[in-house]
Amino acid sequence: LPRERVTVAYDGRPFRGWQRQEDGVPSVQQTLEDALFVLTKERTTVHGGGRTDAGVHAERQGAHIELATPIDPRRLADGLNGIMRPAPVAVLDAAEAADDFHARFSAVRRRYRYRILNRRAPPTVEAGFVWHWKRPLDADAMAQAAAIFRGRHDFSAVRSAHCQADSAVKTLDRLDVERRADEVWIHAEARSFLHNQVRIMTGALASVGAGKRDVGGLAAAFASRDRAKMADTAPPDGLTLVEVAY
Amino acid sequence: LPRERVTVAYDGRPFRGWQRQEDGVPSVQQTLEDALFVLTKERTTVHGGGRTDAGVHAERQGAHIELATPIDPRRLADGLNGIMRPAPVAVLDAAEAADDFHARFSAVRRRYRYRILNRRAPPTVEAGFVWHWKRPLDADAMAQAAAIFRGRHDFSAVRSAHCQADSAVKTLDRLDVERRADEVWIHAEARSFLHNQVRIMTGALASVGAGKRDVGGLAAAFASRDRAKMADTAPPDGLTLVEVAY
Repeated sequence: LPRERVTVAYDGRPFRGWQRQEDGVPSVQQTLEDALFVLTKERTTVHGGGRTDAGVHAERQGAHIELATPIDPRRLADGLNGIMRPAPVAVLDAAEAADDFHARFSAVRRRYRYRILNRRAPPTVEAGFVWHWKRPLDADAMAQAAAIFRGRHDFSAVRSAHCQADSAVKTLDRLDVERRADEVWIHAEARSFLHNQVRIMTGALASVGAGKRDVGGLAAAFASRDRAKMADTAPPDGLTLVEVAY
Repeated sequence: LPRERVTVAYDGRPFRGWQRQEDGVPSVQQTLEDALFVLTKERTTVHGGGRTDAGVHAERQGAHIELATPIDPRRLADGLNGIMRPAPVAVLDAAEAADDFHARFSAVRRRYRYRILNRRAPPTVEAGFVWHWKRPLDADAMAQAAAIFRGRHDFSAVRSAHCQADSAVKTLDRLDVERRADEVWIHAEARSFLHNQVRIMTGALASVGAGKRDVGGLAAAFASRDRAKMADTAPPDGLTLVEVAY
C-alpha cells in the first residue's frame, strides 16, 4: 500500500499520551486515526516515531500511515488539521514515503528538551510546559553530572519498571544543561531512549543541582543499574519531543 | 505611605486586560488588588507600568502599591502568589521603593515582542501566544519596512481611536523583525507607546510581508497620519510586554 509520512506537533496536556488506549481516553494517535477515518473513510493505524507519555509535548513527532487510496499530501495535511480543530494537534507536513519507510524503525535520532522553571514564583505563561523548582539549582553542577550519562552504557538505573525494551544498553549522544535566565534547559539526543529515561535523568540532574547529592554519588547510583538508587521521575510537563530525525 | 515595587508576569488569556473594569470582569489589576486585600486587609490600588489589553501577556510588568502597614517584600510576593493561585498571575519579585517611585511615570523604557506563526498548520503548543498567518511572509521586506517607524515621529496613523495620549509624537527606539524557523518575531522598544501602537505597526508590517503593499506605500500611509490608511490591528494573542525598565 502507498505510504505517507507526516510530521506532527501537539500540546500534550489534553492527551493521555501518544498511544491509543484500550479504554478510549483521548490520545494523539486516536485523534489522528479518527480524523483520518473522517477524511478517507479508511480505518488505518498511525505509526508514531516515539511514544510520548501523558502530558508530554511534541514539536516534530514523526509518523506514517498506509492508505489503500492515495491522497495528495497537502490535502491530507490540510484535511486532517481542519477535522482535528480545536484539538491542539497539527500535521506540519506530509509527503509520500518509500514502501519500507517506518516512522519508528527508520528513525536515526530522537531529540528531547526538558524545561525547569527555577524561581520562587509559580509559572504563568509557562504553565504546563515546565517543571517548577523553587530553590536555586546549580546548573554548572548539573552540566558536570550530565557527563555521567553520555556515551554507551547500561541505562537500567534510569528506565521505568514498565519499559519493554529488550536491552538497556544504549548510546546517549547528547545530554547538555543550559541556564537560560530563570530556566534550566536539558537537551538530550540519541537513536532511541528507554521508557522515562529523559525524565529520570532529569530528576537525577536536579538532585545534583539542588545539592542533595554530588556527582560521585550519582555516578555510583548509575553504575549500580538499580532504579531504586536513582532520583524520582521528573513530571511530564517540562518535556518536549523536539524532533524525530530519519 | 511606604511603597513597594513589584514585578508581575501573567498569561493574558483569562483576563480582560491589565486594567480594573467597572463591571467586575476579570483583570490582572483586580486579581492583584483582591489578593492584596486578603493578605493585608487594606484596599489599595495597584499602579501598573503599562496597560496591556485583553489577551496580551506580560513577562515583566512593573507595578507599585502604597500600604499603611509595611510588609516584608518576600512575604508580600509569596503571600500574593499563594492567594492568586491558580490564576496565571505571579509576582516575580518585590522590593521597597522610594516615596517618589511610580510604576507608570518612573518607567524609562517599555519592551514588547510580537510573535507571528507563519505556516499552514495551525498552532498547537503556541496557541494563544501567536498570530497565525498561513501564507509565506517576507521577513526581509518587513525588516526594511520597520525602518519607517523607527525614530521620532507623529504616530497618529498607528494609534487606536480610543488612545488618550495628549500627543502622538513619540520616539520609537527599536523595531526589529527576526525570522525564527516558522515564526516571525517583532521586537519594539520605546519610553512609551500609544494605544494599540505595536499591534497596528505589526499589522502594517505583515501587510508588507504578504506583498499586499510595498515599503513606499506604507511610508506614505504613515506620513499621512491617517489611521484609516494603515493596516488592521494585529490580534492581542501574539503580543507580550517583555519588560518595563526603570
